[in-house]
Amino acid sequence: MKRLEIFDSILRDGAQSEGISFSVQDKLKIVRTLDEFGVAYIEAGNPSSNPKDIEFFQKASQLKLKTAKLCAFGSTRRKNMRADDDENVLSLLGANTPAVAIFGKSWDLHATEILKVSLEENLRMVSETVAFLKSNGKELIFDAEHFFDGYKANPGYALEVLGAAADSGADVLCLCDTNGGAFPEEIYTITKEICEKFPSMRIGIHCHNDVGCAVANSMMAVSAGAVQVQGTFIGFGERCGNADLSVLIPNLQLKLGYHCIEGDMRRLSDMVAKVADISNLSVGKNRPYVGESAFAHKGGMHIDGVTKLSRSFEHINPKLVGNRRRFLLSEVSGRTTLLAKIRDIAPQLTKDSPEVVEIMKQLKQAEHEGYQYESADASLELFVLKVLGKYKPHFSLVMYKTTGEYPAPNSEQTSSAMINIHVDGKHETSASLGNGPVHALDSALRKALLVFYPQLHKMQLIDYKVRVLEADHATSARVRVLIESSDGEHVWTTVGVSTDIIQASWIALADSFEYMLAKTLTEEDSTWE
Amino acid sequence: MKRLEIFDSILRDGAQSEGISFSVQDKLKIVRTLDEFGVAYIEAGNPSSNPKDIEFFQKASQLKLKTAKLCAFGSTRRKNMRADDDENVLSLLGANTPAVAIFGKSWDLHATEILKVSLEENLRMVSETVAFLKSNGKELIFDAEHFFDGYKANPGYALEVLGAAADSGADVLCLCDTNGGAFPEEIYTITKEICEKFPSMRIGIHCHNDVGCAVANSMMAVSAGAVQVQGTFIGFGERCGNADLSVLIPNLQLKLGYHCIEGDMRRLSDMVAKVADISNLSVGKNRPYVGESAFAHKGGMHIDGVTKLSRSFEHINPKLVGNRRRFLLSEVSGRTTLLAKIRDIAPQLTKDSPEVVEIMKQLKQAEHEGYQYESADASLELFVLKVLGKYKPHFSLVMYKTTGEYPAPNSEQTSSAMINIHVDGKHETSASLGNGPVHALDSALRKALLVFYPQLHKMQLIDYKVRVLEADHATSARVRVLIESSDGEHVWTTVGVSTDIIQASWIALADSFEYMLAKTLTEEDSTWE
Repeated sequence: MKRLEIFDSILRDGAQSEGISFSVQDKLKIVRTLDEFGVAYIEAGNPSSNPKDIEFFQKASQLKLKTAKLCAFGSTRRKNMRADDDENVLSLLGANTPAVAIFGKSWDLHATEILKVSLEENLRMVSETVAFLKSNGKELIFDAEHFFDGYKANPGYALEVLGAAADSGADVLCLCDTNGGAFPEEIYTITKEICEKFPSMRIGIHCHNDVGCAVANSMMAVSAGAVQVQGTFIGFGERCGNADLSVLIPNLQLKLGYHCIEGDMRRLSDMVAKVADISNLSVGKNRPYVGESAFAHKGGMHIDGVTKLSRSFEHINPKLVGNRRRFLLSEVSGRTTLLAKIRDIAPQLTKDSPEVVEIMKQLKQAEHEGYQYESADASLELFVLKVLGKYKPHFSLVMYKTTGEYPAPNSEQTSSAMINIHVDGKHETSASLGNGPVHALDSALRKALLVFYPQLHKMQLIDYKVRVLEADHATSARVRVLIESSDGEHVWTTVGVSTDIIQASWIALADSFEYMLAKTLTEEDSTWE
Repeated sequence: MKRLEIFDSILRDGAQSEGISFSVQDKLKIVRTLDEFGVAYIEAGNPSSNPKDIEFFQKASQLKLKTAKLCAFGSTRRKNMRADDDENVLSLLGANTPAVAIFGKSWDLHATEILKVSLEENLRMVSETVAFLKSNGKELIFDAEHFFDGYKANPGYALEVLGAAADSGADVLCLCDTNGGAFPEEIYTITKEICEKFPSMRIGIHCHNDVGCAVANSMMAVSAGAVQVQGTFIGFGERCGNADLSVLIPNLQLKLGYHCIEGDMRRLSDMVAKVADISNLSVGKNRPYVGESAFAHKGGMHIDGVTKLSRSFEHINPKLVGNRRRFLLSEVSGRTTLLAKIRDIAPQLTKDSPEVVEIMKQLKQAEHEGYQYESADASLELFVLKVLGKYKPHFSLVMYKTTGEYPAPNSEQTSSAMINIHVDGKHETSASLGNGPVHALDSALRKALLVFYPQLHKMQLIDYKVRVLEADHATSARVRVLIESSDGEHVWTTVGVSTDIIQASWIALADSFEYMLAKTLTEEDSTWE
């Protein structure tokens, strides 16, 4: 099986994308995560451009990595000086990594117009920097910046630049589509020519997604002979991002039979979710292989088909990448999915039962108001029980009042909430301060409920999301709140919608407690999955 | 110039993506928007699966479209019946559109295992349905479902299916990669074979993005001879979405010289933003050509380079697609960008001024707390003025108190706010009810400020966004609020961060009013762009 070297650049090219800012701890966490997944190289930053990267490299050199080599990133020496006098080049040695990637200009226009050097001096900058770093024992990856644009403009010079790097001892010649404007066919043709011209070199590929082809372009380069694939998990990076390794790796390994990673491919979805969390990004529902919707079926015919024969509507088994198949609710999908959920709750119903018709009607109304039950299974279950008249609330709200105050009552707690609930003929009033009105309300409700239901001490809210539904209504827009809760074992999600964020949060919060109570109080026939 | 037919399926395949639900009004708006941009076909729904689509088609038939033909979507007749007895087929006539797209099985496995019909009956279903719809005067697009998988499994049968459609009068044979698992090279080879086998037919291509190659695959098919390109703007659609027309169209028209649309390409970014708004989706910052970050430069060297020579770091001029170049702030980009902004405010400063060092230090601290100034220019400007000691507040907050109440004080207004501010030695107290605490606070502040600054009546909040920063802190997480405001002419954005959503909103709100006041009260040297 042909082996490919996967080279991740989240911590360098990824860090150049809008809205990304990694702490040193974030970077260390990402390095450990990528190493466990078994990539070959982790490009971890530029020690000359950023003081945080220097601190990072000091700490990172103490990590014991299993499969990945750390790689520092920099450029060829500045013009008209010695490589060993250039502090930026020296900082690459200071990073103390086994591998170093340096970029150099391979587009003549960039040498003369951006760097303002002669074409000859640019070649010397490449060869002297490569030779110096090699003489210091580094594995060296030469990133030929703007290679494809350069090769199209002046192929002879672009080849001379690669030749200068190769002759000075570079280990990898990486062809970079820095502006991301190249198309698959030209990537294939040019990469093939380079592989033929440098048969003894390892050729790498570094693509950007500015024409939406980064994944295809990288695959074309592999098909033409490239053995190192650079990219970032989740595909982020400057502008439109880099080639997405979370898509490329399963494409190459599961479908085309290359060996890419040392770890377990079934951990891909979890690993990507973890990297996204650390980066404070969302994975993106639609992302191939690892997105929440990647194997979600909404059209009725697709749901019918995939149930009959999974390979008929899925290009791959979702389990192979640690993802799962999901059926979504919607008017398009007809009633099949919903009916299955309803029948879990009330097995006697059929699709023609008047109860089912009524549920569909009320569900449509709720969706019209901004509710979405696709990811809020717990609220959906309570909703169905309510329409069926089978819902027995475990508490009822008499009143609440939240306050937000400036100046704050104490330094940390800007808000307070008071609540009165009614359980089995008894009233309970409680109050709490909080970091905000929702936090205060959450704490006050919890306090009151614990008087009656001590089992709730196990329950925690683990995620809280807010989406403004009508952007153009500014502060009077409706918001949708999603709350994820856990009892340490199960996880469930509830939803609330209102123009008032406190009320929307209340609805989701109340559902969340109700759901836990419904499940634990009927434990003999518990429907916990 | 070779012409391509652009076939948009937002309202059909797009409607099958998770989280999408179009009202009839939404659909009509999208039709008008796409028609103005000048696509050739708009696939607008399946009249047999959805009562909302029937209502839509009734209204849509009254629209006067300039360039686009509406297309209803359905399937071949059901097994063992006549096409003119099948109510689903009849509903396609009822939709009253000039064009109709029907899908039929071209993968033998699907005929026998999903539909449970003989291969012969499947061919009859195709030819009889096509013939019936043609005899009723429709332009007919035959979608060969799972064509590439089918052709790889049983090329002879897949060709027979296309032949049945062609012989019965179909106008277009569209090759669908329904599961989205095909790769560029096979798409090219197979499409080329089909174009050669059916030289007199118009061949179409319909790709999904499940292996991240939908754009590249569609381009490969065009390169092999396809003339109709199906997809959706913003690329949404079932699972991982469809080929993204907002990327494909500029690729094909601006870079490869095909004629795709009748409208003005410089309206692309605005048009896509409008479609996203109607769909209640975000365009996606990283989306090629039309994303907010598509031409945003963060790396210092890139900023330096693009300033010297724009084509050196941009694959295309952003103006050609109605987008713009942006420079982002960050530690990676060094101080160049920030310095430019600081010098707008204080022209005497240089990059080594102690004030600049201090601004950088405080900015880093603010970013650490969760602030992001990349999209909040107005807050950044106030921030710089504060550090420079040049900020003269136009009001100061003495106290506010917000309440959220259940039961609500009146049916609409669940919240109230009281505020006391101080302006030029005078106090003003005001109060307001609101749809939520932030709305109430906004209204109360506005009331108090209008006493002193009547020019604020022109100012409106036009967008309000909330992002939970630490998902795992549930309701006590920090949130970042972005507020966009306008005076009818200019638009500016401010930011606030706190664990308390009311306080975070207050910070952004106060900045927003301060910014407007700072601009209008120094009109002689106003820096409005």
